Order: sequence, then C-alpha cells, then structure tokens
Amino acid sequence: MNAPVRTLSVNAERYWKGVERSAEIGLGRPGGLARVALGDADKLMRDEFVAWCREAGCTVTVDGVGNIFARRAGMDDSLPPVVVGSHLDTQVNGGRYDGIVGVLAGLEIVRTLNDHGIGTRRPLEVVSWTNEEGARFSPPMIASGAFAGGYALDWVLDRRDDDGKRFGDELARIGYAGAAPVGGRKLDAYFELHIEQGPLLHARGIDVGVVTHGYTAHGFIVEVAGETAHTGPWPMDKRRNALVGAAMLAVAVNDIGWKHHATEGKGTAARIVAWPNKPGILSDWAQFTGDVRHEDPKVAAQMLAEFDAALLECARRSNTAMKVLDRWTWNADLFDRECIALVRDTARSLGLASLDLPSQAGHDAYFISRVAPTAMIFTPCKDGITHNNGEHATLERTLPGVNVLANAALHRAQR
Amino acid sequence: MNAPVRTLSVNAERYWKGVERSAEIGLGRPGGLARVALGDADKLMRDEFVAWCREAGCTVTVDGVGNIFARRAGMDDSLPPVVVGSHLDTQVNGGRYDGIVGVLAGLEIVRTLNDHGIGTRRPLEVVSWTNEEGARFSPPMIASGAFAGGYALDWVLDRRDDDGKRFGDELARIGYAGAAPVGGRKLDAYFELHIEQGPLLHARGIDVGVVTHGYTAHGFIVEVAGETAHTGPWPMDKRRNALVGAAMLAVAVNDIGWKHHATEGKGTAARIVAWPNKPGILSDWAQFTGDVRHEDPKVAAQMLAEFDAALLECARRSNTAMKVLDRWTWNADLFDRECIALVRDTARSLGLASLDLPSQAGHDAYFISRVAPTAMIFTPCKDGITHNNGEHATLERTLPGVNVLANAALHRAQR
Repeated sequence: MNAPVRTLSVNAERYWKGVERSAEIGLGRPGGLARVALGDADKLMRDEFVAWCREAGCTVTVDGVGNIFARRAGMDDSLPPVVVGSHLDTQVNGGRYDGIVGVLAGLEIVRTLNDHGIGTRRPLEVVSWTNEEGARFSPPMIASGAFAGGYALDWVLDRRDDDGKRFGDELARIGYAGAAPVGGRKLDAYFELHIEQGPLLHARGIDVGVVTHGYTAHGFIVEVAGETAHTGPWPMDKRRNALVGAAMLAVAVNDIGWKHHATEGKGTAARIVAWPNKPGILSDWAQFTGDVRHEDPKVAAQMLAEFDAALLECARRSNTAMKVLDRWTWNADLFDRECIALVRDTARSLGLASLDLPSQAGHDAYFISRVAPTAMIFTPCKDGITHNNGEHATLERTLPGVNVLANAALHRAQR
Repeated sequence: MNAPVRTLSVNAERYWKGVERSAEIGLGRPGGLARVALGDADKLMRDEFVAWCREAGCTVTVDGVGNIFARRAGMDDSLPPVVVGSHLDTQVNGGRYDGIVGVLAGLEIVRTLNDHGIGTRRPLEVVSWTNEEGARFSPPMIASGAFAGGYALDWVLDRRDDDGKRFGDELARIGYAGAAPVGGRKLDAYFELHIEQGPLLHARGIDVGVVTHGYTAHGFIVEVAGETAHTGPWPMDKRRNALVGAAMLAVAVNDIGWKHHATEGKGTAARIVAWPNKPGILSDWAQFTGDVRHEDPKVAAQMLAEFDAALLECARRSNTAMKVLDRWTWNADLFDRECIALVRDTARSLGLASLDLPSQAGHDAYFISRVAPTAMIFTPCKDGITHNNGEHATLERTLPGVNVLANAALHRAQR
C-alpha cells in the first residue's frame, strides 16, 4: 500500500497509562523507583512490556545481553529497521520517567500505527536496552555498548554487582538471556526520546529539545592501594591510608568541576568503596569512581589532564599507589545531521517550539550513533531534577515530543 | 593459709599453645585473623576459652553484654577480686596477638597458681571483654564501657552492624547473652597485658612497657546530608553531594594529623559510607568516622577544635548539612599510681628492663580505670605493626610481660 505520510497523533491516555503502571514496579523512596537492572522488579517490568508489545502485534526477540526488540514488520521486511526506544531500568534512587517515557513512546507509536492501519515500508522496532544506568553493573550503557561493538559479549556477562553476582547469571535468572546475536546488523536509523535531565525546556516553556551533540565526558575508576595499620599509634609519615587517597581524589575532581563551572563544566565524585573501612584501622584498599564533563571537547580534555595531574599529587600526599582500572569517554559529535534535521523539521511542521541543545548525560543513543544514523529528542522535566525521587514530568509536556518522535520515525520508515 | 608471696613463672609452652590455637579460629588473610565480635568464629573462640577456664577450676559467668569472667575463688571470697584480661575479638584484618595474649595470660596465671597450689586471699578473675575492636559494632570498647557505666545496657544491645544486625540479637544467637549484671560491683584492681602496638619495646630490646598514661583521643561520627541528582547535567552550584562532604572531612582530619605530626599527633580518616554511592548519581547521605589523638590533652583539644572548624568549612564547601552523631573521648591520666608502681617494681624485682610509656591506642583498661585501680603492661610487637596481618609477637619477647603480670596480680591478690 505504501501510504502517503500523514501526521500521526498518539493516544495520550493509553501512553500515560503505561508510564503510570511502570511507576508501580520497583518502588523506591516515596515518588521514586529503585528498579535496578536484572533485579526482580526489572524482570516484572520486562514481562509486562513484552506482553504489551505482543498484544500490539510485534515479534519480540531478546539478544544475548538482554536487550529487547519488539518488531513491527515492514512492507519490505528485508530492509534495515527504524528503531526507537530507550531503557526501563532506573537508579536506586531514580525517577519514574528517565528512560521509561522513551521506551513506552516507541510502543505507543506501534499502537497508533495499528489504530490507523498504517503500514510502513521499513520495519519498525521498539527497543529497551539493558542496564543503561550502570547503577548495578558498571559501566552504564553496557548493553547498547555491546550492541554497537564497544564491549565484548563475554566481558559484559562477566561484570559483577556489589554482592559479587554475575551479570550473565542474573540475566539468566530473570529469563532474559536471549538467543539473538548482539548487534552486527544494520539499522536504518535510531531515535531516542528522553527527559532532558536539565532545566531549559521546563524553564522556557519549550515543547521539544533537538539534541545536536553531547557533552564530552571522561570517566574513570581508580584503585588505591595502601596498608592497614592501627589508627592510634601508627605515625602519620608511615601511613598509607587508601581511604584518604580516595577522598583526596573525590575532593580533587570536585575542585576541577568548580574550576570550570563558569563554562558549565562538571566534575563528579560518584563513588568510594574502601576496605576494611572500619573504625580503628587504616584501609589498605579503596576504589574511586568519578568523571569530568564539558561541552567543549578541548576543555574536557584539559579537565581530564588536570585530574591525571591531581591523581599523581593525591597518590604522593596519601602515600598510596593509584592505578586507573578503567576509563571511558563519550564524544561530543555523535548524531546524524540528517536525523537531527528531521527531528527539528518535524517539530516545526507540527507547530511546536523546539530548542537545539546538547545532552549533558550519557545515553544509549551515544553508542548506537556509532553504528546507525541517530538522533535524540528531549522532553521537559521539572527544574531539571533527575536521579532523584523528585523527578517529575507531565503527560501534557511530554506528548509533543512523543508526536515528534512518531512522525519522524514514520517519515524515516516510509523512505 | 595466706601463703607468703613468692615469684611465679608461668608455663611458657602451655601459654603459647593457647595463642596458637586462637590463631586457627577466624582466619583472615594469610597470617591474620578476622574474628569480629559476635560472629561464628568469636563464638567458637569463646567456647574454647570457657572450656579451658572451667578445666582450670574457674567458675564462669557471662554478663548482659557478653563479657566473660572466669573466677578462681579467693580464701576470703567476699573481697573484691583482682581482675586480669583483655579481649578475644579482632579487626577484620587483625593480627593474632592484639588482645589475645592478654586474655590467655590471665588464664595461664590461674593454671600456674593451680600448679603450685597457691591460694590467694582475694579472688582472681580472668576477663574477656566483648567487641573491644569496634570492627563490627561501633563504638569500640563498648562492653568494658558498659561495665564501667559509660553506656547503658539497652543502648549497647541496640547497636547495629553494617548489615543491620542487632548487637543483642547476635549476642543471643551465639549464646553469650549472660544473666550477670553489667558492672556495678567493686574490683580490687584491673591489670591488662597487651602488645605495645608501637615500635619502642621491639626496637630497643626492652622487655616490658609500663603504661603510665594514654594519648588523649577525640573520636567522632559525622552524618552528611545532601541530595541525589544526575552526575551529568546538574550544575556544580546546585550540587549537594554528601560523598564530597565526607571526603572533605577525611582530607581535613588527615591534614590536622600532619599539622601535629612533629609532636606525634595523629589524625585518622577511618571510614566513609555513602548512599547511593553509585556511578551516575550524586549521594544524598554519607557518614564519616575519624579521630584525632595527641599525648598532650591541650593539643588534643586544639586538634578537635580544628576539626570542628574544618567541619563547618567542609559543609559550606560541599553545600551539605553535617551533624555530629556521636563523639567519644579517652583521657590521658587514667591509671592508678599504685598499680603502675607495682608493675614497674615487679619488673625490676624480676630483673627485667622496663620502659615507662604512654598508650596511643584505646584499650578496655581505659574504661575500667574509671571504676577500679588499673594498670597496663605492654609487650613487644615487631616494628609496631598491628591491625595488619603482618602483626607479629614471639613467646620469648612476650613471656617477661606475662610473668610481670602474674607476679603483680599475685601481689595484689594477697594484700
């Protein structure tokens, strides 16, 4: 049939019902969710999502790292699919919208196409990526990273959470160790709708954010080796307290963030673990996780150099040995110009106000942009609050973005 | 019979056999022990110790916080007892001698008196105090503190470990929630033998340390309240990262230690816990445990004042709210002049080299000195290394101290 492209409007009530149901699964502190990857709540959410996708006529496949793909066949089903989605896992103190509004927007687009009997030339797939948050298994975006060839399958399956549980074992336990190969196939395009996680759209009353690029982020995990000793008699000049070394790194990265605050740079101390970490004894082991971010890749590189210099100084001052166990980087120029233009033009054609802006957070779209033309759509969230139980988004402010996503994806799928 | 005091020599081989058996219970890293209070290994060690005491003819009683008293009756059994002992628990990365050599020295004295058929006018008690280390339940020396009236029984029983397990429940679980009242009875004297946990005796080849006083220590647990947010977009000037606040405290207390290093002051960052403490999210809660110590109480007070000032500055810089949850202090002048002189004179009469020195670590004796005439005897440990699996003491270097303890306790018990 190859129907001419017409303007889609999704079913707002049906869409939001899914978001509200999701907000019941994996409750955290009041108002928030604690639906960390591969836990029981993640399984329940996945099961419901898969059931909804099947009800909508999709064929569901799961790949070897648990990414779920719900496919609506295309009229020429041999063509690479247009893919839309995000993630359903949350932080341990996460909100109800981060990731979720993007996955369920994809499902709603399928339902809306069904309602109107619209066939698309290319297949359309809705994806939910595993463990985007990295709240349980490090690093974040591990499964979209694997899809894009950034991480080897076995390496991903061998990641362990704080209790020593293995990613692969937990994935099998919840029934989502799928048979489909991880990545290695062509996508026509990938679109991800996500809450902004910044204040601009909310503050300025703008409908849709067109994500033009990302902040450059440099992350690192540093291991600090010291020696245990008694907190009383052991003299300061013999001490090799790993906890002090890690604390110095935390302060240093925070100071670097402040140094670049005027240009909206960020330096984050995210995590310190130490052992024995007990009263009465100096710690002989610690691990520090942090990152620096800046919109200008050159400044981000400078911040990273400042951190590397600080690391040497912190190791000297704390008399410990420091070793960078892992580094990761997201680049600034990620997205496809054509896809970005399509999102911007679609917003305009729907009569919506849009704003070009960078993403400061990491997203699965960063990895997918390595292997497919990609763009992101941001929707407003109150005061930019996120990773907090105060995270808030409304249907009214989210719906315009979902309709932009629907029409952009439809346009692309009819090409 | 009221036998005349004569010189006792303990059975070295039998004594060390007990130390070696203890070194098999609750193995930690190679060479060390991880026998934290109220765990299964602590129970096993207690069971063996109690059996040994009963074999030696003692009556064993356990008080409401699990302190074990093994009593050898006196000829005038209504008199307050002479008490000797220390603790059998260890750090999670503890050595084989810290505390243990003192408790088992008490048992060996009883056996030696039995060997020689020596009755004492006053009863003699061997004590093992619960949770001296504070490695599992905070604060350290909690059960000698309760005995001395420093902590209320219910408060002690309500302490919780990192897994939320209650002191009182764990005490009952291992079968050591005793019926005897906690404290409230008169002791004639308390003597505690302990490894020095400093290098002096070992380095100078001196047999026995006569502990004349303690370093003044000021300890504190600080709670840091912040707010969760995303590590990417959230601007530095809105951040209230509790982990950064705690890290600043750790660096500050370490700096204070260094400031007073020339006069052997110490500042320790012992412990940081934070929540969520995950990549991708700022922590909204953290707790910091540390202390400052100095031989001069006035300097120790100044160090504490410096920490209090630093706390205000750290709270300001990290934009968090800080609250001191708990403070503790050990005083400098603790011990009884007569008991100290008795230890020193006993060493001299045995032809041993002794050195008057302060204790830099905390000990159960600090609390007991509040309610009974108290003294401590230090024995050499290699290089002063302790709270480390490299902690090392030998029978040869420990034995002189045990004989000083035996003869001092005997002298006192015959008064």
